[in-house]
Amino acid sequence: METKVSSASKEVIIGGERPTVLIGERINPSGKKKLGEALKAGNLDIVRQEAKAQTEAGADILDVNVNIFGADEVDLLPKVVKAVMDTVDIPLCLDSANPEALEAAIKVYKGKPLINSVTGEEQSLAKVLPVIKKHGAAVVGLVQDDEGIPPTPERRLAVANKIVKRAEKMGIPREDIVIDCLSLAVGAETTSGTTALGTIRLIKQKLGVNMTLAVSNFSFGLPDRELLNNAFVAACIAAGVTCVIVDVKKVRPAVLAADLILAHDKYARRYVENFRQRQQQAEK
Amino acid sequence: METKVSSASKEVIIGGERPTVLIGERINPSGKKKLGEALKAGNLDIVRQEAKAQTEAGADILDVNVNIFGADEVDLLPKVVKAVMDTVDIPLCLDSANPEALEAAIKVYKGKPLINSVTGEEQSLAKVLPVIKKHGAAVVGLVQDDEGIPPTPERRLAVANKIVKRAEKMGIPREDIVIDCLSLAVGAETTSGTTALGTIRLIKQKLGVNMTLAVSNFSFGLPDRELLNNAFVAACIAAGVTCVIVDVKKVRPAVLAADLILAHDKYARRYVENFRQRQQQAEK
Repeated sequence: METKVSSASKEVIIGGERPTVLIGERINPSGKKKLGEALKAGNLDIVRQEAKAQTEAGADILDVNVNIFGADEVDLLPKVVKAVMDTVDIPLCLDSANPEALEAAIKVYKGKPLINSVTGEEQSLAKVLPVIKKHGAAVVGLVQDDEGIPPTPERRLAVANKIVKRAEKMGIPREDIVIDCLSLAVGAETTSGTTALGTIRLIKQKLGVNMTLAVSNFSFGLPDRELLNNAFVAACIAAGVTCVIVDVKKVRPAVLAADLILAHDKYARRYVENFRQRQQQAEK
Repeated sequence: METKVSSASKEVIIGGERPTVLIGERINPSGKKKLGEALKAGNLDIVRQEAKAQTEAGADILDVNVNIFGADEVDLLPKVVKAVMDTVDIPLCLDSANPEALEAAIKVYKGKPLINSVTGEEQSLAKVLPVIKKHGAAVVGLVQDDEGIPPTPERRLAVANKIVKRAEKMGIPREDIVIDCLSLAVGAETTSGTTALGTIRLIKQKLGVNMTLAVSNFSFGLPDRELLNNAFVAACIAAGVTCVIVDVKKVRPAVLAADLILAHDKYARRYVENFRQRQQQAEK
């Protein structure tokens, strides 16, 4: 299964036995006070810096989220998307829970974006899927519905299936849906890892769609988060996740290790190249 | 499935949804010139130091291998096993391709050892399994036979099945067999990781026995081996491996991360404790 997204000049393909696609998570004010304040003030310097830094660090796609209390996303998201498009040439993942903001951003976007996200909630399905269909975008589907985030892989599969079926019924092809299997903080919820891995395996087997995961939340509240995130990302990619939403600079080495393990990096070329780059940076 | 091994005073149980069991690999002269020379000279100081260091680093079991060109394993292995038993109180994994050396070591061993290894080769099955049966030991079964190491998960499963069936026919219970799924250097063999992971999943599903893996060889010849080994060990444990043969000090943090991911570390107690220990050591 191949999910294609694009910018004005570049196409990125998720899945199809290719290396894991890296979606940079850092243009997101959640937990980033400085970025949040800059965005509210209409200052997009940090956004441009982050876009550049993540792309240089090896991001394939950049997630763009401007969800700040008190800001008008419908106005802000397109502006930030434009600033990122002016800075880098890789595809974007337009990230908002507000369908109007998503549509406003899609309208200024050049290419085929990934939209983050639709959920299994009736209101979300009803409002987001028509936007996806209308603009021919790809979409991230979160495995949560009107009752919340299901606690078992079987029930998360059911939500994923609902999203896929509803989308297909509207004429959105299955390959344009990327399911986010959701990883909760394992420090708070002991079964977070087993539920995520079980969901990934079930969805791979039953639906065959591409899958993503925002890894960093998994280690929330625990020490040595990099070690835990690296182990988790390797296990998830080995189980079937085909793109990850991460801090690219931090997590890319572990993703390249996982790609090498999965025979998606012939002659270890990307792995070794990344090692050399890190060595050169360390020497500077 | 629970595999029980013991020393004179301690029992270790592999499997049964318990944390991954760590088998220390460092009492092995392969690639360790100094240890090899000391062993040949009958000097067991390094062996005692390694036994102590690995146990302090969190090893549950120690592998003891004295395979050196020109040394008499039948004489040497029991001596080294005695020295290790005098130094630490955890169970041992007696490691030799020589059935006579294995039996000589079992005779001096106090407790129920893990024997490393039997293979699917006719000669190995015929010579090693009777020793296992006679002494009531547990045994590591390598997935290779008279034709070598099979290149596919299906054929590795067939070898594992042959070992299990032959052992059961002789009255060795299935829970006393731990299958080593074999990991070849991925730098030389692109499909090494996928074959190992595929084998692990198949054996878990079809045979349900405990499984082990000697991780370090996987990264042979590549840079940043720790990163790659950590990712591989996490993926293998998530796929079903229940004990690992590793450099415990280096790999234990990643194994604890994998155990936390698999809900085998309630409240992240072991993960956090290990982090604190590493911090204290770093401060020294």
